[in-house]
Parts: sequence; C-alpha cells; structure tokens
Amino acid sequence: MTVLCNDPAAFADEALEGFVAAHAGRVRRVRGGVVRSAATPRGQVALVVGGGSGHYPAFAGWVGPGLAHGAACGNLFASPSAAQVASVARASEAGGGVILSFGNYAGDVLHFGQAAVRLRAEGLDVRVLAVTDDIASAPPESHGLRRGTAGDLVAFKVMGAAAERGLGIDEVERLGRRAVAATRSLGVAFGGCTLPGAAGPLFTVAPGRMALGLGIHGEPGIEERELASADAVADLLVDRLLAERPPWHVGYGEDRVAVLVNGLGETKYDELFLVHRRVAARLAAHGLRAVDPEVGELVTSMDMAGLSLTLAFLDDELAELWQAPADSPAYRKGIVEPRRDRTDDLETYAAPSPVAAGTEPSRSAATRLVAALGAIREAVAGAEERLGRLDAVAGDGDHGIGMRRGAESAATAGAEAAAAGAGAMTTLVLAGEAWSERAGGTSGALWGAMLTAFGAALGDEAAPGREQLAAGARAAVAAVTDLGGAAPGDKTLVDAAVPFAETLTRALAEGERLAAAWESAASAATRAAEATAAVPARIGRARVHGERGIGTPDPGAVSFALIVTALTEEF
Amino acid sequence: MTVLCNDPAAFADEALEGFVAAHAGRVRRVRGGVVRSAATPRGQVALVVGGGSGHYPAFAGWVGPGLAHGAACGNLFASPSAAQVASVARASEAGGGVILSFGNYAGDVLHFGQAAVRLRAEGLDVRVLAVTDDIASAPPESHGLRRGTAGDLVAFKVMGAAAERGLGIDEVERLGRRAVAATRSLGVAFGGCTLPGAAGPLFTVAPGRMALGLGIHGEPGIEERELASADAVADLLVDRLLAERPPWHVGYGEDRVAVLVNGLGETKYDELFLVHRRVAARLAAHGLRAVDPEVGELVTSMDMAGLSLTLAFLDDELAELWQAPADSPAYRKGIVEPRRDRTDDLETYAAPSPVAAGTEPSRSAATRLVAALGAIREAVAGAEERLGRLDAVAGDGDHGIGMRRGAESAATAGAEAAAAGAGAMTTLVLAGEAWSERAGGTSGALWGAMLTAFGAALGDEAAPGREQLAAGARAAVAAVTDLGGAAPGDKTLVDAAVPFAETLTRALAEGERLAAAWESAASAATRAAEATAAVPARIGRARVHGERGIGTPDPGAVSFALIVTALTEEF
Repeated sequence: MTVLCNDPAAFADEALEGFVAAHAGRVRRVRGGVVRSAATPRGQVALVVGGGSGHYPAFAGWVGPGLAHGAACGNLFASPSAAQVASVARASEAGGGVILSFGNYAGDVLHFGQAAVRLRAEGLDVRVLAVTDDIASAPPESHGLRRGTAGDLVAFKVMGAAAERGLGIDEVERLGRRAVAATRSLGVAFGGCTLPGAAGPLFTVAPGRMALGLGIHGEPGIEERELASADAVADLLVDRLLAERPPWHVGYGEDRVAVLVNGLGETKYDELFLVHRRVAARLAAHGLRAVDPEVGELVTSMDMAGLSLTLAFLDDELAELWQAPADSPAYRKGIVEPRRDRTDDLETYAAPSPVAAGTEPSRSAATRLVAALGAIREAVAGAEERLGRLDAVAGDGDHGIGMRRGAESAATAGAEAAAAGAGAMTTLVLAGEAWSERAGGTSGALWGAMLTAFGAALGDEAAPGREQLAAGARAAVAAVTDLGGAAPGDKTLVDAAVPFAETLTRALAEGERLAAAWESAASAATRAAEATAAVPARIGRARVHGERGIGTPDPGAVSFALIVTALTEEF
Repeated sequence: MTVLCNDPAAFADEALEGFVAAHAGRVRRVRGGVVRSAATPRGQVALVVGGGSGHYPAFAGWVGPGLAHGAACGNLFASPSAAQVASVARASEAGGGVILSFGNYAGDVLHFGQAAVRLRAEGLDVRVLAVTDDIASAPPESHGLRRGTAGDLVAFKVMGAAAERGLGIDEVERLGRRAVAATRSLGVAFGGCTLPGAAGPLFTVAPGRMALGLGIHGEPGIEERELASADAVADLLVDRLLAERPPWHVGYGEDRVAVLVNGLGETKYDELFLVHRRVAARLAAHGLRAVDPEVGELVTSMDMAGLSLTLAFLDDELAELWQAPADSPAYRKGIVEPRRDRTDDLETYAAPSPVAAGTEPSRSAATRLVAALGAIREAVAGAEERLGRLDAVAGDGDHGIGMRRGAESAATAGAEAAAAGAGAMTTLVLAGEAWSERAGGTSGALWGAMLTAFGAALGDEAAPGREQLAAGARAAVAAVTDLGGAAPGDKTLVDAAVPFAETLTRALAEGERLAAAWESAASAATRAAEATAAVPARIGRARVHGERGIGTPDPGAVSFALIVTALTEEF
C-alpha cells in the first residue's frame, strides 16, 4: 500500500517535483507536466503524451529524444485537464505540428480532445491518437473502444522514433495508428493498490484467485479464476494474445514481435522473469522472434499486484522504429547523441491572470457564491470515501479524490477571485477552471464546465436575481449534456442532472420560490441517482467495460445529487 | 506477496533463465551466474559481483561495460556457493586479475572468500571487497562490520568504471575501498516480503509503524517508531547519514554527493520521488550538490515495503567514475560504444564430472549412505517452515528454504553418484558439493564441508566400520569449527556440534555400540540447541546486529540437532 505521503491532495504534484529534481538534466517542468530539456530540431513533429499520475514510468518517465517531447501529468489516476495538455503541447511544439497520444480512457479522450480544439484554434496542426491495446476491455471488432495500457509504450516509441527521423506529421500519425493496430495486451491482477491517504485498497482479489483482464485502475476484468502457476499464467496470456494475431502478420510470413512483460507494482522482477521465461519459450515454439523484449515496470498502477503481457506484431517498418535509439529518464536504448539544452523561455508553472473587477452588486453576489462553493467543498469532503468506493465498482476509483480536489480548488480559486474584486461570473469561471485543472478526470471536466456555464448566465454587472440563478442552473446542466454526449439512462451524471433541471424549471414556472423550487429539484436528483443502480446501462462505461457494467451505479449522479442538496442550505 | 511461481525450489533458477532470455544481447549464462556477452579488452581487471537472488536489479542486472563483468547468482536471499563464484570469475577474467565484490553478509563473505582461495591457487590475482554501507548494522567505529545494501551500486560503479579505463588491479581495488569508505545508507521498512511458496511474510511491521534500519532480509533494525510523513522520513534519513559525513569531505570543502533513493519493492516510484523531493531540498540547504541522483529500484527485497537512502560523499576521483558511462540491463548511463560479442567458449551451465567407481563393499556402504541422505532430506523438509521462522528472528529468513534445497540436492546427487557406481567417499563428497552449491548461504557451505569431511574419512575402498563412521562424524564437526571460526557459546551450529562430537567420542570410548553412542550424542546436540536461546551470544550474528542479537537462537544449532536425531533411525 501507499504509505509515504505528506498532504494526499498534493501527492501527485510533489512526486512530479521530486521526479524533475532527479532528472534535471533530461526534463523541465512546465505548467501541466514536463517537457524535454534538450532542444528539439526545428520542424520536428512533437509527440505529447500523458494521463493520470500513479503509473510511473508512464508518462513523465518517457520524455526524451526518440520518445515523447512532453508529458501532461494529471492527478492520481485522473486525466490532465485540457488546459494542462494544451500548455505542455505549446511548450513542446517545434514547428512540425503536435500529436496528442494517450491511453483510451473517457477522461483522457475528453481533455486531450478539448486541448486539440484549443490548439487548432491557435493555428497548430494537431492530431489525436488514443492507444487501444487492452483486449479485455472490448471485443476485437470494437478495437477502437479498448483501453490503453502498457501498449502505450509501443505506440509512443514508434511515433517518437519516426519524429526523430524528421518524418512529417501525416507519416508519424500513420505509423502511430499502425502501431496501435498491431499491439495487444492482457493482464492479470492479484490485488489492488491503495491510494495515498486511503484506508484500504481500491479493490481486492480473494487470496488464491486472480482476475483476468482487470484494468489498471481496477476496472472490471473478463473473469476471475483460481491462481495458477507462473507458466500457466504465461500460457493463458500468450494464447489469448496470439488468438488476435493480425492476419497480415501471419499472411506475410512475419515472425517478429515486440514483447513487454509489465509489472503493475507489487509483482516483482523475479516473478516477471519467470513469466517471461515461459513467454519466450512459447513464442519460439510458434516460430515467433522476440525483438528487444522489455521485462520490468512500464505502466504501473501504484502498488497493484499483477502483470500484463503486450505483444506488438511487427514488420520492417515497425521493427526498425521499435529498435531505434531513445533516451528518457525511464527508457534508454541504443546511442542518442547528446544535444544542447533548449534555450527558449518556457511558460512557467504559476501564471495567474489578472482578475477583471465586477460591479459592487455583482461582487456582493460573488461573496454569496463563495459561500456556496464552500458548502460544496464541505459536502464533497464528507463523502469522499463513499464516492471513491462507489467508483471502484465500475470505474477507476478516482471519483472521490478527484471531486475533493476539484471542489477544494474551486472554493479556493473562487475565494481568491472574489477577494481580488471579481464579480459573480468571473468568480465562477475561475472556480470552474480550477476545478477542471486540479481535479482532472471526466468529472473534473464536467464540473468545470457546469461552473463556467452557470457563471456566464450571471454576468459581472447586475446583481443576479432569481431568473439568472435558475437560468444558470439550467445552463450548467445543458453544458454537461453537450460536453459528455450522454443521455438519461446512460447512468452518468446526466441521469440526475436532467430531472433536476426539469423539476427546477417546472417549479419556477408554477410560481414556487427559488429556495423551494431548488429543494424539489434536489430531491428529484437524489431519487434519480438512487435509481441509477437499478436501471441497466445502455452506453458509456457499460459499453466499454462489457456486461459487468450493467447495474453498477455511476458515482457522477450520486455526487451531483449530493451537491445540489447541499446547496439548498444556501437559499 | 510473491504469487507467481512454478516449483518454489526452482524459482531463482527459472527467474535467471527468464532474465537472460530478456537480455540475450547483453549477458550470457554460465555455471553459477551470468557474464557480459560483450568482449572484454585483454588485460582489463574483471569485477565479479554477486549475492542472493531476490534483489533485482542487484546483481545480474548490473553486468555490462562500465559496471560488472559477471554476477554470481545464489538462491533466493542466499549466497552463491564458492564453486559458483569461482565459475563466474573464471568466465569473466581477462588477464588483469579479478575483484570479487558483494554486500557484507556472513554467507557471502564465506563463499566469496573460499572462491578467492581456489582462484588464487589457480594462479589468478584475486582481491576481495565487501561493501559495508548500512549504518544501522554497526556503529561508525565498526564500519567494516556493517552490512552492504544499495551502496553496493556505488562501489561497483566506481570499480567498473575504473576497470573500463584500463587501470591496474591495485588501483581499481584502492578506488573500490575509497568508494566503500565514502558511502552510507539507511532504510525504513513498512512490511516484509513473502518468499515463493511461503504462507506469509518473512516479518511484519505493525500498521502505522515503521522500522528504522531493518535489513533487506528482515534483519533487526535500530528502532521502531510511528509512521511519519514522507518529508519526515526523508529528514530522518538525511540527518542520520549527514551525521556520518566524513571529516575529509567537510575539511576539503567538497560539496558533491551521489544520492540513491532505493525502493525495496512495494514502495512505488511516486513515493520515492516524494522522498527525493525533500532529500534534494535538504541537501541543497546544506550546500551539497547531488551528482547523477538515482531514484528507483536498485537493491530490492522481493516485495518488501520500504526504502533506503544512500549518500556517497564524492571528490573529483569518485565523482568522475560515478558519472562515467555504463551499459547493463538495469543501469545505463552516458554513451558506451558498442563492442563485438565475445567469441571464446564459455563453460556451460551443466558440466557433470564422471564418477570414480568404488569397490563392491564401499558401494554397498554408499547405498546405506544414500538412505541416510534421504532421511536427512525428509527431516529437513518437515521442519522447513519452523527453521525459516527461527532464522527470521535474527537472520535473513533463508535458513529453512536453504536447508531444504541443500538436503534435496545432496540426496539427489548422492543417489545419482551411488547409481553410477560411486563408493562411500565419492557419494558423500558429491552430495556435499551439491548441498553447498544449491543451498548457498552460510549453512550451505557448512553442510557441504561436513558431508565432504565425513566422506573423506570413509574412503572408496573398504567397507567403512564403526571406527570410520565415528571418525567421519568427528571430522565433519571439526570441518565446521575450522571453516566458520566460531566457538561454543557463539550461538552457531557449533553450539550443538561440539557436544555432539564430545558425547559420541566419550560414549564410544566407554564401549557403547555406535547406534547407542550416536543416540546419546544426538540428545546432547538437542539439549545444546535448546539452550542456545537462553545463553547470551558473544560474537558472530549478535555482534553484527547489535544488542538485538542477544537471546536470539541460531537456527543452525537447531537444524544440526534435528539432522543428527533423524539419523539415529539409520543405525
């Protein structure tokens, strides 16, 4: 379990600081993550990778010549925000365009996607490439819905080497897509990790059992079975992966595979070598040649017990790029000629923008909104553990910690903005940006969007009345359905948010006072959240994770209900 | 815990096989361990390191240009045998002499020392250098008695770089001794590792507590205290290590230190980075400059939870060698020019020597000895867990597994020898060699020597009678006191062996039959073993481990008594 910690909320930031201090000659910290300290030749395509923290060496450990140009580093198991991704991309780009690449998780897709929109608006050529190697997370015909795990490294390595050769962005992207199409992973888990400050593990596997295909954050696997010998585990993984060997690899008589035996944290080197011993023998028996095998910790999940096997089916093009030199803190291969340090000024980590002043009435409203943000913070802090446990059933267990970090950051940013003279709109917009950036993950993006939309309805001029507040609440809910694309019944936050907005609108139309209308709407949201567990899911999480998703509650609905209920006290 | 395993007894061998398969371009397997696959320039000093398995990257992960030339790999947490060390040294040496280096543990000192004696007899210039960096294991004035932990890497790196420069063996040895003198480590542990096939961890630390200075096999620490924050742990380690900053480092105004933050297994990268963040800040506040810090897993202890900090106080000479290039499976730095593969024939792993045939009477005696070896095997197998637990109190917990492996190997080798026509002596000598080589550790060396000495007293010609058997038993006991240098009361195997030999001799002199005399002697050994726990220790383990050694029983005496008692059935 994770035992060394100062403030759990600062864990990921402090770890990144210690990482940068250890590798000062290789990486530099920028707002949102790290970039190479070595200069990138002008015109080279920049590869920006990233994801949640807690997976070291993924992702910051892979920044360097021949691999990534920058890594956006989210909080623990939570996607970096769009602002973080965009910041790292701006500090990485060298005139050849930017490829954003990451493991295929909902939060990452959302944030990297939003970052791409922003960066394109700034005139950059940006490509987005999600890695989808984990065969346990969706059937072969839905390859694009699969999660990304240790196969990330293969795709990043191929693209980093291609960029290093000076290939154009179309070609680097094409090779990256080929690498993703050629790469398959499958893992087994024996026990879950314990997040900093948590009382117990995110999930458990019964002693003597193993979970096949469990995700790196504890997402449900394919099946649970009796713990087998090292050889039997290796056989199981090899057989399942070889069953998905692409027809072209067989058809063209190719025999090369990149092999990655990846420890998730607690499963140590000798165990990994034991498994590799059998994997190597099995591949040889199939007439396959392992090219530059990697056995060690590549994509960890804190101290989770388990391992994964990745096979990437290579041809000349992919093999050459996989074998090309690279020099990053955690991955070095061949000889990379030393390069002088970059001399440009990088955007620094702390760069607060000046706050626009509001009118006196709007500033007075901002003070009340700061109190409301404080109430949200308190409500979320009190429910953190419960939300985390709820999320671990179907998701990655980061909902509690993400919501707490987001709500705390929003309350702090809102208070600072109001103290600096901001009106209602600016106070909520800055609070929303802080929530999104500091919380990361899907919920961070959604709550950031809600606060921003709510704020926009209030303005910085007039004192917001009952109409503006109601419009703001409805705008916030609309922002969520716009952003996430989910519908009621998908068992997301929308399940609670839509009845809330409908009830609020109807009650106000019937002439109820705002406080009473809000209370009715909050009750509707609570009832809807409670019902999510009983309603089969149609899409979203459930589709990604297979049948096990059915019947599992989405914690987003629960936390939405919790927050709107807490706010009834503020009227 | 360790969950992936085939046959626990084959764990270390199979892991090494998988390691070599993963790094076929860098290392080659030889009898006893691994050597570089790259050719070593003629006349270069060869650095041969080693120790027990279960500590990866130590030791096999550090074989390559700029680091070690070979690594002797013992069983799990058990020293390689002298034969293994000698074999790896022979395959490594390139005409410039050999330096044998390892962490300072009793078994390693014994086996590497014996290997040096053998190799010198073959005409090689061999130097022996034990690393003694762990400040928890003895006070500063007894620096030479301290254990070796992650500081191994500093000494090996300095010597490997010095050898790579073509320096002579005197100079490489001098630099190695300077590196050891300049290096200090201290660790904290939060929980013990679980060996393959074991039902529970080797030791535990109560939740919310941490053990300061606990050894990498669970050897007792300095003190237990409440679990502190990451910063407080960093402060504690930095303060204790800086208190031992050598006067010359202060006096000459030196400000460079090599910094190693080493994870023991379960304590993951983000936690290590968190600690490194504070270590870096504290060193900077002391005006010290970190040179090429290493933060990661360097000397692990299976899945043990905890970490250690190493500081090596550098000057120009040491700093230059610490920063020099190296290219090994687990440690790479700078640019090492590719070198062609070595083309000499390496001694292969399996090289059984032909068995000398005995006379018919001696072969008949050999058959009875094979039965006796079988009885030893059964007795030891039944007591394995108890012996392991006993050893974990004061030692490294490997006694049970080591004894089982040794007894099994001896029984097998003895049976094979007898089947091939060996007489009594050859059967026991081959059984003894197998015990020593396969069991490793101190007890492996001692039991190997006992069987060999016993066998030598029997010869391969005449049927051994009561006199020869009694003489053999006494010779075996004498071999132990010669080899280990321990006296009765030191709480070693000798405590049981000496009363055994004395009682046997006296009973036979009084005209008792051998079976009865043996039984009395076995009873004396059992009483003596039971008494070891009550008698304060004078030297040996107790001295190395400080006050905590007093009152802890040595499992060697217990297993000796167990075995001689089991043998009473054979008369």
